[in-house]
Amino acid sequence: MTTISVGAKASIKKAFSSDELEAFAKLSKDFNPIHLDEEAGKNSIFKQRVVHGALVNSLFSGLLGCELPGEGTIFIEQTIKFKAPVFLDQEIEAFVEITNIREDKPVITLRTYALNDEGTIVIDGVAIILFPGLKS
Amino acid sequence: MTTISVGAKASIKKAFSSDELEAFAKLSKDFNPIHLDEEAGKNSIFKQRVVHGALVNSLFSGLLGCELPGEGTIFIEQTIKFKAPVFLDQEIEAFVEITNIREDKPVITLRTYALNDEGTIVIDGVAIILFPGLKS
Repeated sequence: MTTISVGAKASIKKAFSSDELEAFAKLSKDFNPIHLDEEAGKNSIFKQRVVHGALVNSLFSGLLGCELPGEGTIFIEQTIKFKAPVFLDQEIEAFVEITNIREDKPVITLRTYALNDEGTIVIDGVAIILFPGLKS
Repeated sequence: MTTISVGAKASIKKAFSSDELEAFAKLSKDFNPIHLDEEAGKNSIFKQRVVHGALVNSLFSGLLGCELPGEGTIFIEQTIKFKAPVFLDQEIEAFVEITNIREDKPVITLRTYALNDEGTIVIDGVAIILFPGLKS
């Protein structure tokens, strides 16, 4: 298990399949055809189907909730900048990195970002979370 | 179809089931037991299972991508404050409301928030989106 300290980092590699985009569309009710329909993707400014930004963002939920700091994580606040599209079946790597730990409360700030397979930042942001399990 | 103008609003009512939490856990790899396990929920500060914040947030993806402004929406930036927990099977109502439309570019700012069945704000934030279909 990674030590919970400033600079600690966790990451996950993931590509989203057509089935996963459909599953997410059902959960979010986001049936925007730019995500689901080949033709609509082609006619968009991206020229192909793109993964829902909120689905890409969900990888940070997984990293924060299961890796760093891990089980028990409660989200307080999140800022997300969608910098570049993520395409269907394109592998990205999502990272969380601790940038601050409050001394008075078990509150942790992390940079949350992801790179595509060309090394381009596709999403960048900050998450502030409560981690009751933190020993201070 | 709602007119795209400052003050325009769209909303959706939704409760998340155990099956949906499990489906989202698989997509996000967020198997944090506070969401999935009855016992872990009871032992948390919330005393019961809570819905993944990133899943609650996905409702804005649906509203923005399919309702207001609708198909073709591309996320640029989002800020989310998680103000109160959303419990399993608890109905919430999520809203998006246009607060600004840029004159020089098809860029729209919306307040994105949700209320639980007691009228408490559970999530509050801002989304900035690109909507190429906007006639200016």
